[in-house]
This record gives sequence, C-alpha cells and structure tokens, in this order.
Amino acid sequence: MEYFPPALERLVEQFARLPGIGRKSAQRLALFVLSLPDEDAAGFADAIRQAKSAIHCCPVCQNFAEGDGPCPICASAKRDQSTICVVADPKDVIAMERSREYSGAYHVLHGVISPMNHVGPDDLRVKELLARVGAGDVREVIMATNPDTEGEATAMYLSRLLKPFQVKVTRLAYGIPVGSHLEYADDATLMRALEGRREM
Amino acid sequence: MEYFPPALERLVEQFARLPGIGRKSAQRLALFVLSLPDEDAAGFADAIRQAKSAIHCCPVCQNFAEGDGPCPICASAKRDQSTICVVADPKDVIAMERSREYSGAYHVLHGVISPMNHVGPDDLRVKELLARVGAGDVREVIMATNPDTEGEATAMYLSRLLKPFQVKVTRLAYGIPVGSHLEYADDATLMRALEGRREM
Repeated sequence: MEYFPPALERLVEQFARLPGIGRKSAQRLALFVLSLPDEDAAGFADAIRQAKSAIHCCPVCQNFAEGDGPCPICASAKRDQSTICVVADPKDVIAMERSREYSGAYHVLHGVISPMNHVGPDDLRVKELLARVGAGDVREVIMATNPDTEGEATAMYLSRLLKPFQVKVTRLAYGIPVGSHLEYADDATLMRALEGRREM
Repeated sequence: MEYFPPALERLVEQFARLPGIGRKSAQRLALFVLSLPDEDAAGFADAIRQAKSAIHCCPVCQNFAEGDGPCPICASAKRDQSTICVVADPKDVIAMERSREYSGAYHVLHGVISPMNHVGPDDLRVKELLARVGAGDVREVIMATNPDTEGEATAMYLSRLLKPFQVKVTRLAYGIPVGSHLEYADDATLMRALEGRREM
C-alpha cells in the first residue's frame, strides 16, 4: 500500500499529466513543492494563474503574447513582415529565433493535421493564415512544420490552399544535420540530402 | 533573441526550479500548461495551494499527512508501533512501503546532517525522535538513511544519541542488489556484501 494523503495525491496527478513526467517524477516534484516555504509554493500557483490570464494569442501570428495587441515580432519594424514562417507550435518559434538567422514573421498553427488524434484543419489556425496571405503584402510563406508524416501532410495541405494567392511557398531544406556523421544518418535523410545537393 | 512574454518567463522560471527540470524542459512544461483549458490550469494551481494548506507533518512520525492528527500509519493498530524505521525523506517511506515487508512505524528526519549544505542536527526532526524513544514502548530503531557519506554519518550520530535509552539500534543490510550482476558491483558494495555474508 502506498500511502499518500488525498491532497498530495491530487498534486501528484497534476504533475503526472505534464508531458515527459511519469508517476515517479511526479511524486518527486510534488514532494519538492510541499517542502518549499509557503510563499514559494504560493508563487508557483500564482505564476500558473497569471500566465494563463495574461498570455493570449497574438491576433496576427497566433503565437503566445502578453496583452491584447500584436506580439513584439509582429509589431517590429525591423522584421520583414512580407515573409511568414509557418510552424506547428510556439516552441518552434523559440527554436527558429535561436538560430538568429530568420528576420521575417511567423504563423503558429497550434498543432498539425492528424486524423489519428482527430485534429483537422478547422482545429488549427489555418483561416487566420489564409486571411493574412489574402490581405496581400505577403511574398513568401515558408513551411517549417516538422519533417514527419503529419508535419509533411500539413505543409502539403497548406501549400495547396495557398496556391490561388500566387504567393511563393517554400519548405525548409532536408539534409544531414550539421556536426553529425554520415554513417549515422538514416536512409530517408541521406536520400533527401542527395536530392537537395548544391554546387560548391 | 529568445522572445518570451514576462508572465510566461515567470512560469518557466518556476518550473526550472523543480529538481531535475532544466531550462528547456521548463519551457516545454510552461507551454503545455498554457495550452491547457482554463479550468485545467486553474486546477493545477489549486492543487498546489490545497496540498500546501492541507498537508502537515504528522506530530508523531513527522511524515506528510492530511489534517492535524497522527498519520494513518501512526494511528494504525495493525502496525508495530514499537519499531521505528528512521528515514531521511517522505519519499523513502514510500519506497519502504512498496516492499510490503515492513509493518512497523516510521520517523522522517526531513534531511540528513550535511555540514557542506549547512544542515545540522537542529535542522532535522531529531528532538522528536528522542522524545518518542524516551517515552518508552520502543524496542528497536532501524536506521534506513541512504548508504552514502551523509546518510552514514547521520545514522552514526543518531545511534550514539540513542545509546542512553538502551534501545536496540539496527542498520539496513548492505549487499549486492537483487537481480544485479556481481561484475557490475563496486568494490565497497562487494566488501560489505562479503562482511555481511550469512550461513545458508
């Protein structure tokens, strides 16, 4: 019999719902939170509530942003607003920004089309993307969904939807990751790397 | 530039304080919480507050328990209250209970003596242990702190403090873990296993 007081059990269950946190990690986290001083534990609870109430989706790119107006990236005059990089999740925006290479705008779909999980185009921010492209001023849409089956299908689906707008639609390059070894690359990646070879 | 709205950044920081959660995992968890429906995120925040307010230390064994009275283990007539197993943390009680082998009571120290981390005997629930043993009716105290330097030192220190009470003080056996291989056992464990060998 594992003895857990009900209030502790409920906290363990909350932690266990988080992605990548199993039952045992959840127990460890819940016990850690219990061992915190009262004000620190209250600070944690407040941070959840405040983030949830303060953070909304940017009306332009649909990324998480504070307040009602457009997010800093959409509002920035330094960013090229005529190029839209379409990603599945807010964390993909973080990854793209980390490269310091991209200076355009984003569009966050909040998921990918996945019939297995009952996610269709209507569950994603597709309408908003079409409205942005339809409003003109967009020259290029870069599909940056993950290179897996669902990400591919979503990119394909969107590129067809965007055809009538006569906008340039591109896809991130596939290839060998920088710093990795040829011998560890899988067949599909090698094939794509060969297909996408460029003159030196 | 990693763009994070302040309220989201604060939530990421809260998650990053948890043990075993790095900055990147914290981002993932914070974004997951943001993607939850409002009532689910509120439920998470409430679970933290409620656990913190409902859970107190059992006045007898110092383990986490709900309400003011003794915990279910200390209150149980089925448990041998004359045997006390001394552990460092509430999660060690969970581990002991999982073995289904122990039917005595516990005493949770809430830490181990660690001069490096400025934790002395006064920071632990040592007084409470002495009071329990001093009240009589205790026949055996089992030291079940971890078999590392600090756990050893704490067990040694407590066993000396308990000498005047003329109570039997024992230590969990060291040896090869069940199901493991001799070749992977470290020298110290093998030495202890040899020392502790028993007739078959």
